[in-house]
Amino acid sequence: MIGAIEAGGTKMVCAVSDEDLNIKARTRISTENPQDTMREMLAFFGEYELDGLGVGAFGPIGVNPQRSDYGFIGQTPKEGWSGFDLLGALQKEIKCPIYLTTDVNVAAYGELKRGSAQNLQNAVYLTVGTGIGGGVIHDGAIYVGDTHPELGHIMVKRAQNELNGFDGVCPYHDGCLEGMASGPSIGARAGVKANTLAEDDPLWDIEADYLAQAAMSYTLSFAPQRIIFGGGVSNQSQIFPKMRKRFAEYLNNYVQVPNLDEYLVHAALGDDAGITGALLLAAEVAR
Amino acid sequence: MIGAIEAGGTKMVCAVSDEDLNIKARTRISTENPQDTMREMLAFFGEYELDGLGVGAFGPIGVNPQRSDYGFIGQTPKEGWSGFDLLGALQKEIKCPIYLTTDVNVAAYGELKRGSAQNLQNAVYLTVGTGIGGGVIHDGAIYVGDTHPELGHIMVKRAQNELNGFDGVCPYHDGCLEGMASGPSIGARAGVKANTLAEDDPLWDIEADYLAQAAMSYTLSFAPQRIIFGGGVSNQSQIFPKMRKRFAEYLNNYVQVPNLDEYLVHAALGDDAGITGALLLAAEVAR
Repeated sequence: MIGAIEAGGTKMVCAVSDEDLNIKARTRISTENPQDTMREMLAFFGEYELDGLGVGAFGPIGVNPQRSDYGFIGQTPKEGWSGFDLLGALQKEIKCPIYLTTDVNVAAYGELKRGSAQNLQNAVYLTVGTGIGGGVIHDGAIYVGDTHPELGHIMVKRAQNELNGFDGVCPYHDGCLEGMASGPSIGARAGVKANTLAEDDPLWDIEADYLAQAAMSYTLSFAPQRIIFGGGVSNQSQIFPKMRKRFAEYLNNYVQVPNLDEYLVHAALGDDAGITGALLLAAEVAR
Repeated sequence: MIGAIEAGGTKMVCAVSDEDLNIKARTRISTENPQDTMREMLAFFGEYELDGLGVGAFGPIGVNPQRSDYGFIGQTPKEGWSGFDLLGALQKEIKCPIYLTTDVNVAAYGELKRGSAQNLQNAVYLTVGTGIGGGVIHDGAIYVGDTHPELGHIMVKRAQNELNGFDGVCPYHDGCLEGMASGPSIGARAGVKANTLAEDDPLWDIEADYLAQAAMSYTLSFAPQRIIFGGGVSNQSQIFPKMRKRFAEYLNNYVQVPNLDEYLVHAALGDDAGITGALLLAAEVAR
């Protein structure tokens, strides 16, 4: 048996499966203070003898085993979690190998093995929703530098037809990708929630412009074989043709990429990407 | 004995050394058509029995051994070189293991082992001169995705105080880093060569702004331990304090990075970075 945790800021999704990923049990636990939340999670897993556990956690979190902050949550507004030793708390009670990385990294891995990036070695996964985050697959494995990437906050230039004076909604950076292209940024411009806008609303052109810029910068940085878009905003399928067109204009054939219909694609696994990737990583460390 | 080639668009620097990098012979060959240029290079190396050869070549060039274009020069304005099988032409005459990558990648590797990134596992090297290019060190090795990165052409937002209507000098992309921050972009704004400008010319503030943005995007993408700046423009040391200040403002403590005096640094090896890195890679494949 293997286990998986998708540790989010509002809920913890926990699952147990066999090594073929047939789910035996699954639960959602509300993310409260670390002590109560851990007690509930450990009670769930305590009923099983696990051979491996995969964890995808909200960040910032130490993901580099060579650093002393490995497995620790970094500075976060989530009360009680700043500096919490998540990996240590799990290892103390669950005696099996544990693979720990970020929530977007496990989703990227799920898409790599069972979703939109199967059989590829290099890919970028971007989730575009309330925030923007990304994971990178390099040589078939999750990319970890000194810490994990934060792909949502790279710089972008102002889109054509951007609203005068709009610098985005990111509290940290004027004009970063998340500030200009997250769901709330669309809502802030429109005055209504993004998902209530018509499919042909011009704001989707602006959205597509920023995502195209991001895809261009990831292309030139990571040289992936595919870029996969998940998250709520990516469910607006009208974005994709606009984004591909804009990407082609921006990149201007500077480097060769695959056919854009196969290069800039929608995620296949939806909300299951994370738990699927975490289980697959659990199965790998279990071997 | 080991050999190295720095294959540039105007000259080929070739060197032979022992495995401690004591140079035994070194030559510069003008880059003409592939046939003549290869004949001269092969004549130089023909006098030595090499155990390994490291090659850093101008791009685009196939650097991924799993692809059919491995070792081939891509589309280039350099006459006769588009589609040339550089690796094949070398392998035919030089019977030793060959490591082939880009010119900026060998320079990055040189800086990693003997220059400004010693003892680090993750670093980004950026050369800022006539063009802008970069190499990435990941887990102590050169990062190769489906192909090599092209870090010089990522998107940036307009700097504060940018000249009205100036969209950069890149023939491919309005507003990319190289277009806005290469040496010629400074010259285009000033009407005189960049290196004739006074140290306190306000154009250096604009330059520092773009390099700070680039450093921010590389930080959030690759999570390196250090970013190293080489190339002619980086010799303008007044840029560094301005860039560090702007970087701190842009990043706004969103992720933790080392002290900026140690994080955004000048390259240590200057023009020797490339040949040093190529020799080190030759020594590695020779083992």
